[in-house]
Amino acid sequence: MTTYRLDLSYDGTGFHGYAKQPDMRTVQGELEAALARIVGPLETVVAGRTDAGVHAKHQVVSFSLDDPIEPAVIVRRLNGLLDDAIVVLGCSGVTDTFSARFSAASRTYQYMILNREAPDPLVRFTSWHVPYLLDVDAMQGAVAALIGEHDFASFCRKAEGRSTVRKVLDASWRRNGVMVELQITATSFCHQMVRSIVALCVEVGRGRVPASGVPAILEVRDRAAAKGAAPPHGLTLWNVSYD
Amino acid sequence: MTTYRLDLSYDGTGFHGYAKQPDMRTVQGELEAALARIVGPLETVVAGRTDAGVHAKHQVVSFSLDDPIEPAVIVRRLNGLLDDAIVVLGCSGVTDTFSARFSAASRTYQYMILNREAPDPLVRFTSWHVPYLLDVDAMQGAVAALIGEHDFASFCRKAEGRSTVRKVLDASWRRNGVMVELQITATSFCHQMVRSIVALCVEVGRGRVPASGVPAILEVRDRAAAKGAAPPHGLTLWNVSYD
Repeated sequence: MTTYRLDLSYDGTGFHGYAKQPDMRTVQGELEAALARIVGPLETVVAGRTDAGVHAKHQVVSFSLDDPIEPAVIVRRLNGLLDDAIVVLGCSGVTDTFSARFSAASRTYQYMILNREAPDPLVRFTSWHVPYLLDVDAMQGAVAALIGEHDFASFCRKAEGRSTVRKVLDASWRRNGVMVELQITATSFCHQMVRSIVALCVEVGRGRVPASGVPAILEVRDRAAAKGAAPPHGLTLWNVSYD
Repeated sequence: MTTYRLDLSYDGTGFHGYAKQPDMRTVQGELEAALARIVGPLETVVAGRTDAGVHAKHQVVSFSLDDPIEPAVIVRRLNGLLDDAIVVLGCSGVTDTFSARFSAASRTYQYMILNREAPDPLVRFTSWHVPYLLDVDAMQGAVAALIGEHDFASFCRKAEGRSTVRKVLDASWRRNGVMVELQITATSFCHQMVRSIVALCVEVGRGRVPASGVPAILEVRDRAAAKGAAPPHGLTLWNVSYD
């Protein structure tokens, strides 16, 4: 058996998310269908399942084959079969204990906000348009309170019985012209965690919630205490790190 | 009669260019159809006609009405009628001698090149993917030779009897991570001029044409001497200046 690591990038706009679903166009569905034409049917493991509309600048997938095949052949044939919305960046043979999901040390996401009065048609699929002037220093104060290991139940869509304890390693907001961008890294994220954090930070940036109120929202461990979720299209899986 | 200036932005991806054509989805066609629903049928004048696939961060259009209407109403109603690919940024009443086209002092275009081995699905509609490492200093040398007033016949799609003399006011290439970007300003441009200049600069950046050979290409005034045209989707009308 040979195990492979596949690095890819995709525009999530036209997909019903990463994870395979019957009769839906998904990234995993397209990828596994293309792989099946090259090496036969197989199962793949992904580092970060992304929701519908969410993009990936750098996603990692792993799979194993009984009969080895040259990684460069996989890259070339996959890119020939896949449409332009998915690009395979590279493929390499890895140790058989490697799992794109379980071997990952951390994931980094980026969230982009267009912060000006008028929308911009050129970034409408990759950013959230917030027409109110945002106080980025206050947003940084809000997100700084989340760094470290916490129970993020207030920021997670419920998954019965699953732990919502996560460790945020780094999080920073910056203004880049009319764009306001978050980069956030955690060992892993629960469902809708980044988008829920963004929604709360925007409330802080508009002055409707004080940054000093964030620890209490974390503390109550109740999703009703947060401020919903920011739209998916502003979110991009930026990178996955392995030890 | 009242004359209006309309500022707009569009994602050119789904349009057969700016200029109206029968049975084609064009920016002018959509804009005039929406305006007709607000103020009745009318003709508009545009600062820079863009080809199919070319975008506009900032385009300017002018038109006149017999019965005045509040500019803010035009903005709000147009944005309600137009789809998300076109955004009206503003509207103002201007002097009756104003023409978006003839009053313009200069136009600035941007051209984006993704300069790395792998394509990036997230910028596939807004940049040209050039996988060969480009020498940006050499490209700057090439474009610097074009600044000033020249006959750009070597860089223009023929228009019988029309002058191809244009004045380039500024042009600069810069590397921004994996992107290589041109900003070029001229009093006006002839058809496909920016894309023809980009195609030549890329040949220079790949080392296939020396930057020192550019003045001779300009001098022969023959389109066959140039290197074709770069693809339209990397091009964006960046701004239009008025005195």
